[in-house]
Amino acid sequence: MDNFDFQNPTKIIFGRGTEARLGAETAVYAKKVLLHYGSGSVKASGLYDRVVASLAAAGIERVDLGGVKPNPRLSLVHEGVRLCKEKGLGMVIAVGGGSTIDSAKAIAMGAVINGDVWDFYLGKGEPKAALPVGTVLTIPAAGSESSTGSVITNEVGELKRAVNSDLIYPRFSILNPEIAFTLPRFQVACGAADIMAHLMERYFTMVKNVEFMDRLIEATMKTVARKAPLVLENPQDYDAWSELMWAGTIAHNNLLNTGRIGDWASHDIEHEVSGIYDVAHGAGLAVIFPAWMKHTLNRDVARFAQWSARVWNVDMDFWNPEATAREGIRRLEGFFHSLGLGTRLSDLGVGSDRLDEMASKCTNADHHTVGNFVKLDRAAVRKILGLAA
Amino acid sequence: MDNFDFQNPTKIIFGRGTEARLGAETAVYAKKVLLHYGSGSVKASGLYDRVVASLAAAGIERVDLGGVKPNPRLSLVHEGVRLCKEKGLGMVIAVGGGSTIDSAKAIAMGAVINGDVWDFYLGKGEPKAALPVGTVLTIPAAGSESSTGSVITNEVGELKRAVNSDLIYPRFSILNPEIAFTLPRFQVACGAADIMAHLMERYFTMVKNVEFMDRLIEATMKTVARKAPLVLENPQDYDAWSELMWAGTIAHNNLLNTGRIGDWASHDIEHEVSGIYDVAHGAGLAVIFPAWMKHTLNRDVARFAQWSARVWNVDMDFWNPEATAREGIRRLEGFFHSLGLGTRLSDLGVGSDRLDEMASKCTNADHHTVGNFVKLDRAAVRKILGLAA
Repeated sequence: MDNFDFQNPTKIIFGRGTEARLGAETAVYAKKVLLHYGSGSVKASGLYDRVVASLAAAGIERVDLGGVKPNPRLSLVHEGVRLCKEKGLGMVIAVGGGSTIDSAKAIAMGAVINGDVWDFYLGKGEPKAALPVGTVLTIPAAGSESSTGSVITNEVGELKRAVNSDLIYPRFSILNPEIAFTLPRFQVACGAADIMAHLMERYFTMVKNVEFMDRLIEATMKTVARKAPLVLENPQDYDAWSELMWAGTIAHNNLLNTGRIGDWASHDIEHEVSGIYDVAHGAGLAVIFPAWMKHTLNRDVARFAQWSARVWNVDMDFWNPEATAREGIRRLEGFFHSLGLGTRLSDLGVGSDRLDEMASKCTNADHHTVGNFVKLDRAAVRKILGLAA
Repeated sequence: MDNFDFQNPTKIIFGRGTEARLGAETAVYAKKVLLHYGSGSVKASGLYDRVVASLAAAGIERVDLGGVKPNPRLSLVHEGVRLCKEKGLGMVIAVGGGSTIDSAKAIAMGAVINGDVWDFYLGKGEPKAALPVGTVLTIPAAGSESSTGSVITNEVGELKRAVNSDLIYPRFSILNPEIAFTLPRFQVACGAADIMAHLMERYFTMVKNVEFMDRLIEATMKTVARKAPLVLENPQDYDAWSELMWAGTIAHNNLLNTGRIGDWASHDIEHEVSGIYDVAHGAGLAVIFPAWMKHTLNRDVARFAQWSARVWNVDMDFWNPEATAREGIRRLEGFFHSLGLGTRLSDLGVGSDRLDEMASKCTNADHHTVGNFVKLDRAAVRKILGLAA
């Protein structure tokens, strides 16, 4: 196990009706806030009205900024930054999924600097401060409600880049599983794939003696594998939703990577796909991850075999661990299929004509590698994209 | 799953050599601190010198208060409170195990009030403030390094009582598994039993649809069951120690009781035993818990069977779940025996003459019940003590 620091300050407020507490929790931090959200679905579901009522009851002034799209855009972030500065807003409240929360985090960092927040995403400098962020989560997926991460897409250049900073841990996140009842099936499936991917990125490590975290990650994977099909079968299943939603947060709140180094190559590769083609992140991960596994399997067959046996209940073939490992990958693909997701680029409508370009952008024209379990150069990324085609 | 709030702000600093960071972490909070510790072991091991050097290097003034004993005493807490007030100390640094940390938390609460901190332990009022507490953990056991709890014994009346407050989450805790290498075997065994007990208190619940937390708790139990024997076999096994130490913190940092109600009757009953006989807490729990299980088994045989199958690898007897459950209890007793712990009161040198008194004190002369999985009155507690005799 590696040395580590771990501190996650986000207050989780979980359960039925908890969005009614938004105003009181917000009042701890600010009197005037940016209320940030996505499409019309939060209005159609009635959530918007409840959120606005709770803020009003606590005497919180608000400025609205809707319109966040999946793969949130830098242009809207700039608009939010402008509003915060012009109106003197002291907090950003995100009502939505990972895209809305990531956009809110970007605004929170941008609102306290003179320059362009995009510089942080390009690795030029690090944030020194940020407005507080609070969230009302609508979809279990990205884990952004209790994470240090924010991923933004710059339309200019089709670049999708990430920032990680302790400053953008949300101060609180409100998780009411009932809010997820009305999600479209495809979004639910993509969310479950994203959660599973967050767990797999952490699981596949070359750091030794990490059995405790292995077991916690496996426990979380099993929960996702069991509960995601249940909420697709019955979208009103509060019990299954509550387990899936809480698992989605734990999957990405940094606890499960304590003492180990995650991989993250699949995320990096997927970002190139969705940066160009604007596919849903979870749908992209369902394609990239199995291909990544087939390429990297032999780096540590025992780890793949353990994963197959413990998470997917594959009988261990003690004379042929690789066969055990390959069966686990097949069951992962079967899990994605059962959610209605494809596992090939062609299922996403992505052809083979820009694979070289994606491999090159992912590795900065072969100037750096991606991943840690195996360090992948441009040729290796290209090979994985080929396996996914 | 029940609604819940979860926020654990303690910063965990984990790994080899991390005690060297004590001074820098302390300097964030205070310039003058109470350095609180137990017996001479921290001096004999050299840890005291490293701690003092780190504080000095950061320019931190300190006042020493050693002498904490297992089942920490109110009289020493009063002494610490007096020192903090007289010398204007701004933080309490605990170097030790659960007893030292619990004592430090009590001092931290007492230092900012005019009255007696014992009142909080009697349930008269709640703390409104506390000095910050930081810890350097020496033994994986109580979980106090990242918990809201403090248990103190008042020598007058042999009363052992607890306070829980978010105010006494340590601001940081330094966990270096190497520090545990020199622990006496008996303390290691008691620590492992305490960790397992914290997990079992949370596991046995009547709240339904808590599968995710069930699995996380099982994963942590398996880690303890596998690693505790390894550190007894080879006290220099850093890898096993690191997993056991981190499991001990996670077992009690409130994550694993999200959405459910724990039981805690075994802790309450054990507190009566150790309040009178001054036995080690973990040794007492190894006696009380199996007896509690035999008494409560039929409240939810399926839960006990799941625990037996998943944690102890008992083959499920689908026609006789109770037999599966009873085999799990036998394996738990076997685990305690393998650590060198007894599972009967007589193993602790506790006779049968004061069982009625303990049952009465535990239930306040039958004016309240203990436990949640089953609510135990005086007669039930007496029965469990009889099963443990």
